[in-house]
Amino acid sequence: MKIVIDMMGSDAGSVVTVPAVRNFKNKHQDVELFVVGKIAEIASLSDIATLVDAPDVIQMDAGPMEFMRAKGSSMYVALETYIKEQADAIITAGSTGGILSGATLKLKLIPGAERAAILSPFPTIIKDNYVVILDIGANNENNALQLTQFALMGRLYAKHVYGKDNPKTYLLSNGTEANKGSPLGKETHKLLLEQNFPNFMGNIEGKEVLNGEADVVVCDGYTGNVLLKSIEGTAKMMTTLLKDAFKKNFSSKMGYLLSKSGIDDMRSRLDYKNTGGAMLAGINGLVIKAHGSSDIKGFTSALEVAYKMADKKVVELLREGFVANA
Amino acid sequence: MKIVIDMMGSDAGSVVTVPAVRNFKNKHQDVELFVVGKIAEIASLSDIATLVDAPDVIQMDAGPMEFMRAKGSSMYVALETYIKEQADAIITAGSTGGILSGATLKLKLIPGAERAAILSPFPTIIKDNYVVILDIGANNENNALQLTQFALMGRLYAKHVYGKDNPKTYLLSNGTEANKGSPLGKETHKLLLEQNFPNFMGNIEGKEVLNGEADVVVCDGYTGNVLLKSIEGTAKMMTTLLKDAFKKNFSSKMGYLLSKSGIDDMRSRLDYKNTGGAMLAGINGLVIKAHGSSDIKGFTSALEVAYKMADKKVVELLREGFVANA
Repeated sequence: MKIVIDMMGSDAGSVVTVPAVRNFKNKHQDVELFVVGKIAEIASLSDIATLVDAPDVIQMDAGPMEFMRAKGSSMYVALETYIKEQADAIITAGSTGGILSGATLKLKLIPGAERAAILSPFPTIIKDNYVVILDIGANNENNALQLTQFALMGRLYAKHVYGKDNPKTYLLSNGTEANKGSPLGKETHKLLLEQNFPNFMGNIEGKEVLNGEADVVVCDGYTGNVLLKSIEGTAKMMTTLLKDAFKKNFSSKMGYLLSKSGIDDMRSRLDYKNTGGAMLAGINGLVIKAHGSSDIKGFTSALEVAYKMADKKVVELLREGFVANA
Repeated sequence: MKIVIDMMGSDAGSVVTVPAVRNFKNKHQDVELFVVGKIAEIASLSDIATLVDAPDVIQMDAGPMEFMRAKGSSMYVALETYIKEQADAIITAGSTGGILSGATLKLKLIPGAERAAILSPFPTIIKDNYVVILDIGANNENNALQLTQFALMGRLYAKHVYGKDNPKTYLLSNGTEANKGSPLGKETHKLLLEQNFPNFMGNIEGKEVLNGEADVVVCDGYTGNVLLKSIEGTAKMMTTLLKDAFKKNFSSKMGYLLSKSGIDDMRSRLDYKNTGGAMLAGINGLVIKAHGSSDIKGFTSALEVAYKMADKKVVELLREGFVANA
């Protein structure tokens, strides 16, 4: 197996990615790694990986034009390396817009797929149970056919990556009844029923998404991004308030020390940096996007996700799924 | 001042509303109250309120048709009482769809307003600082003009209810740059700039909504509902995980007891039941919707909100605002 790694993309850069790559390699001696970035910063990995020089870093708000112009960037060179080496996965913590544009231009979409979607697993209230949500931000606008394709991508992912036999798929809406939702939601609901989409469970509201009931939640990219970010924002707010609560007085400080191990458990379960990587579903290649603010643990976990998905041949499964549903 | 109260709407019914009304009256002897519901359940309030009989209760998923048919329901009778008594406010914890349909049919919209919006204050990371968000669910679909009107309603509310001189108004989006957003978001952004909307600060992402920076956040009803419910869902998930964390072992249980006062503070700040009531902004009358799962404290606080808004003459201010902007 070959994995190509953009070493410069994350907010912290090689300070995070270099140790993460070493951690990963310690566990997976058999994987061939290609690390792409400024040679001076990645040279220490020469004993375990092939070094690929790329002098530039793409800015975090890059779009298609910026990507095409940034031919010396680690992201651009990494994509070219992925193609040249016929690698099994590529991973970056860099600009979402950049990798989305680049992957769409360079790798194209899976035959039959209308759009790529950003697919990410989220922790739920049930331990070690994840819900797969897509699209969380690749698109500003989608149509009903695209959403039914996202449902298929989500289903295949939940089935093969999480081993769920018959994943329960829901449509994000503002009410659970079939007649609730935006015009797009109602149309998609109808289309999924017409398709006899396997185990389609109907609408789900934002407040139920994380309760462990749903295996897959489908939404357009704009709404999905609002969902993702309001989850992040609320979690951050509560964490801050919790810190304040423990600082209130001497007694509460003692209380924190005594309950620390439980609280730390909780924090680590909620830490989206450690959920690993999101997948650019629908791209004709395995592209993993790690969180921009990944720390060493987070980037290592994203490398594990890339490994697992390459091992399960998720993209081939999606390709076959699209042929079967054509 | 006259306030009309639908006593039967909340999940718990008169068990919650009767004591809440008494609490409220103790503080506001001068307000004339009309309590509407099953006489047997509200009779104990005859010393402090005018009792109005209504034998039925409207179901929680009622729409316009159901509302018109439910002429004996406490909600219907309460709206008629509001009109007949020329009251200053009406409050219900019943069906959102029901009161929205009923108020639109019976009270109509403010002249110039295209649509009603559900407006609600949310607690932020900064103590005693609220952000006003609208629409959080009155509409399934909106256009750009409607969103600019929501911005105006939100501004007037933040100004007059929270005394903010020049409220900072943001548009909910999936990125902070002006060119980010759904097609609707981009059009609204342009329109607000063309209008020179006072103190319009541009786009805001879901993760920043609760950080205390924004005074008003505007979005379409579908997206706003997803935002509201994902905030609720995440808060609920974290509360559950926190309880688990404290139950982990003997030490963490002791920890809870020691930090309890800080934790309780945090919970009460986050308790949306106690934020009071949402307003049906744009309706030509003061209609307050309390949370369906309000407890006594929550319903009392919603009554306080109704009192405050009636006292500030919020609907008149909105009417004047719409004339000034016509």
